[in-house]
Amino acid sequence: MRENLKGVWPAMLTPMDENGRPNWGELEKITDLLISQGLDGLYLLGSTGQGFLLSTEDRMKVAEVVSGVNAGRVPLIVQVGSLTTHTSVQLAKQAETCRVDGISSVAPIYYGPSDGTSSMAMKHYTDIASATGLPFFPYQLGSGGYLGGITGFVEKLIQIPNMAGMKLTTNNLLEISTISYTSQNKLVLFSGSDELMCQAALCGTSGAIGTFYNLFGQECQKVRAAFLEGQVQLASDFMLVFQEMIAEVLPNVWTFLRQAMQLRYGVNIGRPVAPLGNTHKTLEEQRVLAMMDKVIKAAK
Amino acid sequence: MRENLKGVWPAMLTPMDENGRPNWGELEKITDLLISQGLDGLYLLGSTGQGFLLSTEDRMKVAEVVSGVNAGRVPLIVQVGSLTTHTSVQLAKQAETCRVDGISSVAPIYYGPSDGTSSMAMKHYTDIASATGLPFFPYQLGSGGYLGGITGFVEKLIQIPNMAGMKLTTNNLLEISTISYTSQNKLVLFSGSDELMCQAALCGTSGAIGTFYNLFGQECQKVRAAFLEGQVQLASDFMLVFQEMIAEVLPNVWTFLRQAMQLRYGVNIGRPVAPLGNTHKTLEEQRVLAMMDKVIKAAK
Amino acid sequence: MRENLKGVWPAMLTPMDENGRPNWGELEKITDLLISQGLDGLYLLGSTGQGFLLSTEDRMKVAEVVSGVNAGRVPLIVQVGSLTTHTSVQLAKQAETCRVDGISSVAPIYYGPSDGTSSMAMKHYTDIASATGLPFFPYQLGSGGYLGGITGFVEKLIQIPNMAGMKLTTNNLLEISTISYTSQNKLVLFSGSDELMCQAALCGTSGAIGTFYNLFGQECQKVRAAFLEGQVQLASDFMLVFQEMIAEVLPNVWTFLRQAMQLRYGVNIGRPVAPLGNTHKTLEEQRVLAMMDKVIKAAK
Amino acid sequence: MRENLKGVWPAMLTPMDENGRPNWGELEKITDLLISQGLDGLYLLGSTGQGFLLSTEDRMKVAEVVSGVNAGRVPLIVQVGSLTTHTSVQLAKQAETCRVDGISSVAPIYYGPSDGTSSMAMKHYTDIASATGLPFFPYQLGSGGYLGGITGFVEKLIQIPNMAGMKLTTNNLLEISTISYTSQNKLVLFSGSDELMCQAALCGTSGAIGTFYNLFGQECQKVRAAFLEGQVQLASDFMLVFQEMIAEVLPNVWTFLRQAMQLRYGVNIGRPVAPLGNTHKTLEEQRVLAMMDKVIKAAK
Repeated sequence: MRENLKGVWPAMLTPMDENGRPNWGELEKITDLLISQGLDGLYLLGSTGQGFLLSTEDRMKVAEVVSGVNAGRVPLIVQVGSLTTHTSVQLAKQAETCRVDGISSVAPIYYGPSDGTSSMAMKHYTDIASATGLPFFPYQLGSGGYLGGITGFVEKLIQIPNMAGMKLTTNNLLEISTISYTSQNKLVLFSGSDELMCQAALCGTSGAIGTFYNLFGQECQKVRAAFLEGQVQLASDFMLVFQEMIAEVLPNVWTFLRQAMQLRYGVNIGRPVAPLGNTHKTLEEQRVLAMMDKVIKAAK
Repeated sequence: MRENLKGVWPAMLTPMDENGRPNWGELEKITDLLISQGLDGLYLLGSTGQGFLLSTEDRMKVAEVVSGVNAGRVPLIVQVGSLTTHTSVQLAKQAETCRVDGISSVAPIYYGPSDGTSSMAMKHYTDIASATGLPFFPYQLGSGGYLGGITGFVEKLIQIPNMAGMKLTTNNLLEISTISYTSQNKLVLFSGSDELMCQAALCGTSGAIGTFYNLFGQECQKVRAAFLEGQVQLASDFMLVFQEMIAEVLPNVWTFLRQAMQLRYGVNIGRPVAPLGNTHKTLEEQRVLAMMDKVIKAAK
Repeated sequence: MRENLKGVWPAMLTPMDENGRPNWGELEKITDLLISQGLDGLYLLGSTGQGFLLSTEDRMKVAEVVSGVNAGRVPLIVQVGSLTTHTSVQLAKQAETCRVDGISSVAPIYYGPSDGTSSMAMKHYTDIASATGLPFFPYQLGSGGYLGGITGFVEKLIQIPNMAGMKLTTNNLLEISTISYTSQNKLVLFSGSDELMCQAALCGTSGAIGTFYNLFGQECQKVRAAFLEGQVQLASDFMLVFQEMIAEVLPNVWTFLRQAMQLRYGVNIGRPVAPLGNTHKTLEEQRVLAMMDKVIKAAK
Repeated sequence: MRENLKGVWPAMLTPMDENGRPNWGELEKITDLLISQGLDGLYLLGSTGQGFLLSTEDRMKVAEVVSGVNAGRVPLIVQVGSLTTHTSVQLAKQAETCRVDGISSVAPIYYGPSDGTSSMAMKHYTDIASATGLPFFPYQLGSGGYLGGITGFVEKLIQIPNMAGMKLTTNNLLEISTISYTSQNKLVLFSGSDELMCQAALCGTSGAIGTFYNLFGQECQKVRAAFLEGQVQLASDFMLVFQEMIAEVLPNVWTFLRQAMQLRYGVNIGRPVAPLGNTHKTLEEQRVLAMMDKVIKAAK
């Protein structure tokens, strides 16, 4: 059942209109684009998808629209984490009506540590996960929450109803490995740091979910698969190029993505909802093209 | 103009009903209670007031109701920080219509560091602050954001339109002192760590805003004033008792507050909106009474 | 017996010669200077005293020389922490022969966390403390080590033989308060952050040990005592001036101290042992004088 | 010239006698053992080699003895970092007389941040590196020091005379990658986290230096080489077994290593110098054998 939850998944961008609401036409376009590229799945409404910045109604409709365009072609996971457990449960139930393959949630927002290890987080996860029959994927952000024992943490996690796996966004890869062997392979793990996509593939992960797979999904999918088949030098070379590009664009990532998605695919993702990206500057078009070109070449 | 922004202010609790919405009757009651106690002001809809967990409409109505009950008796500051700049601006504008004395905002939520030092935070603050003519108070949470220079940070802060002061919730008191002397006394600073109320009064602060002043507002107001008039031993003794009580109740702070507010004042604050307090356990009533009694006695 | 372990103690500078060894003449001079100023005690061979950068023999001789000059006038505590337990025990035993009033030790150096909460640290402390009959004072540096429970930490600490108190260098004053009430006043606590000297006097501390009391010992002693007697405004004003001066000189603290001790007292403390202070720049003499003058005036 | 600085290097254990001094006979034995296993080099007197806990004389003699036994068979790097720059320079000069291939130094100990990014660290490194004509390798420990820009940090590093590379002990692999591409392959990088040996091989590293290569040097060398030649599944499987073993033994790593080295190779490494390992407990011999067996099998 969970066999298809693997590979390279974009943390899908939600194109926005001038009023800070989803641009439905562009949303359909990017959904179809990514699926037609043969990517392995789509993760909706996380940090990249600006789930937290949309109204509950718009979040529901995004899940519905993407699911409709997808028509069962690739697996979908919907991030339903929000400020209240109540809203998250509503979003989870609605997602279940949309033919999706899993739901995911970040830890409680604002209140409590973002690493999702508190008893408040466990209860929040449990309430959300038990609201549907869908596989559940907590989304862990950052490091440091495993003081006091990762073993105990994983033991609590696997008691959550419908617990299926995790999305782990950390550059400390030992955390991912440790969750992998501690859970004895019972969890489907996705790494969330694009910059360490191949390195994390050695840590018991099934796949990778990230922002840059919206733009370089095919390249990353190809490199990751080639790596797993033994092309270690390709992976090593690609990752350094990929990392350098990410480091350069990160301070202006929202304008870079808007420019690059337009230039490469003709998709207009619009401006993010402020405060997100509120200081990001437009880049030279030539520089955007050169960076894209370098990454594309490094995948060959 | 800002002469009245000082002293001990409850970060006012928002009583909730069974459906996770404000209990308007109890809200009027607690507002009148705290004002009639002679406390120096009210800070609305922050972390304690569960602002982030209410709908925009309910946040607006809380400001309106409290302002109505207050009828100008004490100064009010309304926390308007939220996930989007747009909503925060709406809340700020509505607060302005309610005869309040200032608006406050936490740093961007979820995205970016919570310490409020990023350029994204500065732009977010600026957009909110310039939406009204009211004095503006960023709400800084936690430590560590001053790497790279607190001087530069304060220089940027004081360029925000209507910048009036800050609420600083940190146990690292040197951060408060440093902002105080760096801003050359131009900012009205409130400390946010109840446990260090008197210690922070030596750091250039004008007042203290905190959760426990809902329950012990008169005691804390009396001790803080007595301390400033020279009763150092009283302050020292009281703070140790107050700290020990807080440390004991913190793991179950929401049930403690509910029980204690009911027992002492007959105010029903209800359950917080989940996930907040979702694992908190009811305490023995005798223990709640004993802890309250000890704090009250220590203030004498 | 421990009645005299209180007040303002310099973490005494160890004057050095051109070869990176103690300058014995200047050492006698500074010892006599600080004692004749009426300061409450001397803490030898800590971070400020460069204990870690001296040979075992020189450390022993420093304790002997200072003890001889002191001739019982003020209490002395000798810091004996070093890379090995063996050397620390040797230093502790020798200190006991020198008529000192206590020994102190930092946590294990290099290996393990500097916060001194590990079981390795407890064993290290125990081995050192039980080597003599002197009161023992662990020297805790920094924050963050109390995850997992400060109560359990203090319970372990008070089982150390001869455990008498602690030197706590942290700007998080809640840590000091918590150790104070948790140990039920059984420990003699010294705060180590000069910048929060008066604030920490509200946290159950008996005294303050610090670098800047070599230069401003009389001013700080006067302000601290006046504060405890009720001069809160003086304390508040002084601390802001004192903090601002420290922040200004910190990047070049070793040259500042050398210049200032020479200008004010005619004591030549020499250059620190590299790498300590290896990039510190000489300041304008007028600026040094102006800063000293400002602090001295603020104490009046 | 630096072609031979690559592959798997033990951070060589220094066998100790009952008096906390090197056991010269066992030192010769372990040196010969590791070299005869065909390992790629030896890193002497780092954290594992207890360099900081030995006298300067014993550190010099260790370098001399190992160099003598080696007789030029494998490259040697000697860690000379110590509390003072003076001692480090002495150790570096003596190492140069011993036919070694490089010197290495940790950042300043006790004073300042251990991440080695301060100007004090740069000056310390420069003074040590310029004392000899040998290639120099700063040893960076831990994370977090790159706030303010890794680019600027690397720019400063590469100005150090004789700068040849780094040993980087961190689980945040993005730090290693970033130093790799920022230095444009000019630095020979060794990863220091045994648990991420293969993952780090994708980050621009030339080799790996670590504690567990004393015990499993041949297995790790084989797996790392096989990985680079395309056996990704073997690497992935091995790393999870290796990580689980390390996590299990870490709380008692010194007794585990003593037991395991004795059981597998008949080498007696003795007890570490206290406080190091002062609470470590002896393990069941059957458990030690079983863990070793599992790692050995995973390498096949």
